Amino acid sequence: MKRAVVLLSGGMDSATTLALANQEGFECYALSFRYGQRHDAELDAAKLLARRFHAKMMRIVNMDLAGISNSALTDTSIDIPEQSSEGIPVTYVPARNTVFLSVALAWAEVLGAQDLFIGVNAVDYSGYPDCRPEYIAAFQEMANLATKAAVEGEEIKINTPLINLSKADIIQKGTDLGVDFALTVSCYQADVRGRACGRCDACRLRKVGFESARVPDSTRYIV
Amino acid sequence: MKRAVVLLSGGMDSATTLALANQEGFECYALSFRYGQRHDAELDAAKLLARRFHAKMMRIVNMDLAGISNSALTDTSIDIPEQSSEGIPVTYVPARNTVFLSVALAWAEVLGAQDLFIGVNAVDYSGYPDCRPEYIAAFQEMANLATKAAVEGEEIKINTPLINLSKADIIQKGTDLGVDFALTVSCYQADVRGRACGRCDACRLRKVGFESARVPDSTRYIV
Repeated sequence: MKRAVVLLSGGMDSATTLALANQEGFECYALSFRYGQRHDAELDAAKLLARRFHAKMMRIVNMDLAGISNSALTDTSIDIPEQSSEGIPVTYVPARNTVFLSVALAWAEVLGAQDLFIGVNAVDYSGYPDCRPEYIAAFQEMANLATKAAVEGEEIKINTPLINLSKADIIQKGTDLGVDFALTVSCYQADVRGRACGRCDACRLRKVGFESARVPDSTRYIV
Repeated sequence: MKRAVVLLSGGMDSATTLALANQEGFECYALSFRYGQRHDAELDAAKLLARRFHAKMMRIVNMDLAGISNSALTDTSIDIPEQSSEGIPVTYVPARNTVFLSVALAWAEVLGAQDLFIGVNAVDYSGYPDCRPEYIAAFQEMANLATKAAVEGEEIKINTPLINLSKADIIQKGTDLGVDFALTVSCYQADVRGRACGRCDACRLRKVGFESARVPDSTRYIV
């Protein structure tokens, strides 16, 4: 059985990505991070999702990025914006996907896995540079020069099955695969029980997704 | 004053790299990691070196890589080899430079730094794939697609001033710049006071370096 390391934040995109990797027959190793984010609710969600989609193992790596970051997601003195803005928003965490993919690459090498899965999306997204296809391609190229496994001929593949899908497509696909979106946490400022604010950028993208997909919005809201 | 993030392990190569970056007029931000390595002696050395070479700030990022690693450097059940071996040795830590450079990239973005320094060397080295020039070039290319700063036109440069130097050249250069190598810790199994075993691969490369450079070996040995 081919192994894959799947980045799992606990949001709807990574949940759908894990469901897809599982359906494709990979033995999945779910990888999550406690990097200084505002709440643990998304990690609780990740644990439930890993179990639901038969991850062989799930690991939460602790990493104190808050000290070197200036994002609204890790710095509670910066308010989460509740209006759309021009350009890359303050919720951007510097080089986050690069750091996460690097650790995934390390774990993949230890496991003998050649496939990494990440639920990045470049359609209905927040404009983060590290979600774009050209970035993913460059990471893959670097990864294939970085490790002992790659040097010995095992090609690393960064799988991004959602990259060209709309949020509505993702919701449709996830629903078909049995993802219970009520479990997933997208909100940037969810409460301890994982209930969403309904107002931040992540909540807005998610709401519009449910509407376009014509799937009832199962999100648990605070209000 | 241009800012640079300098990866600082506490060994002789990163010490010389910091001294060089400082001499080139960069305002240096030293970055070290507690990633599950066997001893903290190298981090103690890194702190002294950061002070000695006027680093504006020094940060130690905690990251529990031991749980996903299978290296002799993080797993005390694997013996540190005391003989040279064919191929990439068991002291190799999967994707370590990729993980470290990724975090450096994140911090650089926060600081508005465009320069990263890493003391990799592809001459007298242990054969690690993530020390080779083609790897560094690929990382730089990826980095320039990864961040908000890069997207907005600030070009990231990965500086590797030691990459083509022999160990003897590094020792000569470091000595000229005032690096006190007695402070630095290269040994894979140094004791708590930072004294070296004299037998591991890192110790061997270092010893031969002092001999070739005709510089007295100031290393503090256990025996």
